[in-house]
Amino acid sequence: MNPQTLKIDGARLLQRLRDLGRFGALEGGGTNRLALSDADRAARDWTVAQMQALDMAVAVDAIGNVVATYAGTEALPPVMTGSHIDTVRTGGLYDGNYGVMAGLEVVATLRDAGLRPRRPIQVAFFTNEEGARFQPDMLGSLVLVGGLPLQQALAVPAVDNGALLGDELQRIGYAGSAPVGRPVVDSFVELHIEQGPVLEQQATAIGVVEGVQGICWMEFTFDGTSNHAGTTPMALRHDAGECAMRTAVFVAELVARYGGRQLGTVGALQIRPNLINVIPNQAVMTVDLRNTDGQRLRNAQAEVLAFARAMALRSGVQFQHRQLADFAPVAFDADLVASVERHARAQGLSTLRMPSGAGHDAQMLARVCPTAMVFVPSAGGLSHNVREHTAPEQLEQGANVLLQVLLERAGR
Amino acid sequence: MNPQTLKIDGARLLQRLRDLGRFGALEGGGTNRLALSDADRAARDWTVAQMQALDMAVAVDAIGNVVATYAGTEALPPVMTGSHIDTVRTGGLYDGNYGVMAGLEVVATLRDAGLRPRRPIQVAFFTNEEGARFQPDMLGSLVLVGGLPLQQALAVPAVDNGALLGDELQRIGYAGSAPVGRPVVDSFVELHIEQGPVLEQQATAIGVVEGVQGICWMEFTFDGTSNHAGTTPMALRHDAGECAMRTAVFVAELVARYGGRQLGTVGALQIRPNLINVIPNQAVMTVDLRNTDGQRLRNAQAEVLAFARAMALRSGVQFQHRQLADFAPVAFDADLVASVERHARAQGLSTLRMPSGAGHDAQMLARVCPTAMVFVPSAGGLSHNVREHTAPEQLEQGANVLLQVLLERAGR
Repeated sequence: MNPQTLKIDGARLLQRLRDLGRFGALEGGGTNRLALSDADRAARDWTVAQMQALDMAVAVDAIGNVVATYAGTEALPPVMTGSHIDTVRTGGLYDGNYGVMAGLEVVATLRDAGLRPRRPIQVAFFTNEEGARFQPDMLGSLVLVGGLPLQQALAVPAVDNGALLGDELQRIGYAGSAPVGRPVVDSFVELHIEQGPVLEQQATAIGVVEGVQGICWMEFTFDGTSNHAGTTPMALRHDAGECAMRTAVFVAELVARYGGRQLGTVGALQIRPNLINVIPNQAVMTVDLRNTDGQRLRNAQAEVLAFARAMALRSGVQFQHRQLADFAPVAFDADLVASVERHARAQGLSTLRMPSGAGHDAQMLARVCPTAMVFVPSAGGLSHNVREHTAPEQLEQGANVLLQVLLERAGR
Repeated sequence: MNPQTLKIDGARLLQRLRDLGRFGALEGGGTNRLALSDADRAARDWTVAQMQALDMAVAVDAIGNVVATYAGTEALPPVMTGSHIDTVRTGGLYDGNYGVMAGLEVVATLRDAGLRPRRPIQVAFFTNEEGARFQPDMLGSLVLVGGLPLQQALAVPAVDNGALLGDELQRIGYAGSAPVGRPVVDSFVELHIEQGPVLEQQATAIGVVEGVQGICWMEFTFDGTSNHAGTTPMALRHDAGECAMRTAVFVAELVARYGGRQLGTVGALQIRPNLINVIPNQAVMTVDLRNTDGQRLRNAQAEVLAFARAMALRSGVQFQHRQLADFAPVAFDADLVASVERHARAQGLSTLRMPSGAGHDAQMLARVCPTAMVFVPSAGGLSHNVREHTAPEQLEQGANVLLQVLLERAGR
């Protein structure tokens, strides 16, 4: 048979996604499968069994990443695909899960067809991609590529119960022995739902992801003085809340001024004592800045920080700043990106070149090998939401693109 | 003796304040004496005993206000003073308490001197002035003057445990039989700590309170759409948090533009889901506007409401508005205000004419009789705070002014 006409089995893919969705299932839909929880362990055990049923060799590394290998005809560096199977507390069925199940579906399709490519094909799922239970997010892939020392990662406490990541790996039986730090991989392709509204809005089947935008997360703490709202003249106030809110509006206006691919969000703000007639004495806010252009992102960061600092100074308010995340933009491999686009079009699918708005394991793998991503639409742009949805035919289309990209790459 | 040279006993006043401060005392200082709590009952019982020890006739009305009468030589409408003895959850020793204890000290001073004025002098404490346990604040004095029907007030549930105010009055034994609605009072003078920084900043002993500023409390609820901060283009967002924060900045800028006695505070803001990388889908904020000029206050209210509404419309966000309080400014009686000023100066005390920034029982009494207030400084402007403080000599000065104002008025 001609490998270029090979197609995955959409129904089988969907069934695997539904089966995986049972672990940590929420009443009414969606999943709660925090990293290294009991639900995650059950989902891992099931996924490993699926891998073994496909005659793949399964390795667990020291940070709990699981990599299953479908042997090639030669012992060359493998072509890897995969994603994650942990979810946020109120997650959907597709985020991460889709990339892993589609990888298995690609292998199942090759196996059924009796095809064995030149290079091995690996399907991986990485530990704690979401960051909902352990910080930072994308932790497993970050450790895999040597971006975070193993011992440091193992000592990260869980947000919910303070358990150490290393202890939790032991507890659920995923403290493996495969080494981390210098993976030898030919290339990495991650298939994922967009988690945004752009593909749906533009009625496009496949997002050809050129890279991941840079992310800057800051937390500002303003400490002022709490006083009576009725008896304290405006000139004598040290209003921490006002500092935060003015900074939030500055962020919104900066984003409008920068335009282009600049994003800015103030998602969290806590003010104390949070009473109608008391001037806030503390405000803790977060700022999420993103841009595909690293220089513009750094400029935005500097401007916001300077504004917040000046605002605090002017208001007689103490100011503290914590950098919670700082990732430079990642550009994916031009050849591999072009390969995604070519195969999508060859299958008659509409395509759009776009950056990834969210962080993904692929941006970590991009540090060590040529990497690309394939996006399929997210209904309503919803993700991290129990109503997360992608139509079955769209899931099938994405997996078929993945199949051909992996086949081409593994044949080299 | 010449009544105009009569002085209160500062040490005795201070002792009464300290004794009263034991009820609901917090470790490390301050008091937690929510209205109609067990601590409030104990403080009431103790205060009533103090009144009786001064040979005052004690009456409890149907809303639990306690009025003690020191008989005059004629059965004329009495001159009343007083305040409240309930506190907020982390209150000080002076707010309200000072006015009641100073009233008793005035009576004790007259009694010791064998002086009986022409009119009776009444010392009152009113139920639930703080509004920390039952809404609205100043409830007891409001019912007393007929501003809120008794049955409606008795049916108000407690914020903490849902108990009805009427049941709590029964429980603590303060559901009295004296009527409410049409009190016959010659005049009312309330002595109170400033609860703001102005007197201290200007090194002034006595605040001659000309009235109470108007208060407008609004709550705005913005309902938008929660989405991923990294994948949602700015143009497709419905950011409830941004609407609230822009409205907060509008309030600050409006206050600067209005100048004069316009105050504005955004004290409370709750955003959901309150996560760094999620666009807020809900923001609930409060706006506290105050002005001594009723027309300007209404203008400010209308401007803020219109801005918030327009902001929501522009952002594709739902908007709801609740009016939580709306009190027009109150002007005190010019003659009685002048009397406060005259007696303070006659005692060699510096004075400042000022509005009250906070609400007080006096503004309710002003609906039915000539009313005035006397302020003494608050250290650091602190109130509703366990560190609330006024120096003993300042407490004594205020009580001596009260003594002379009451004596003059009761002699008419």
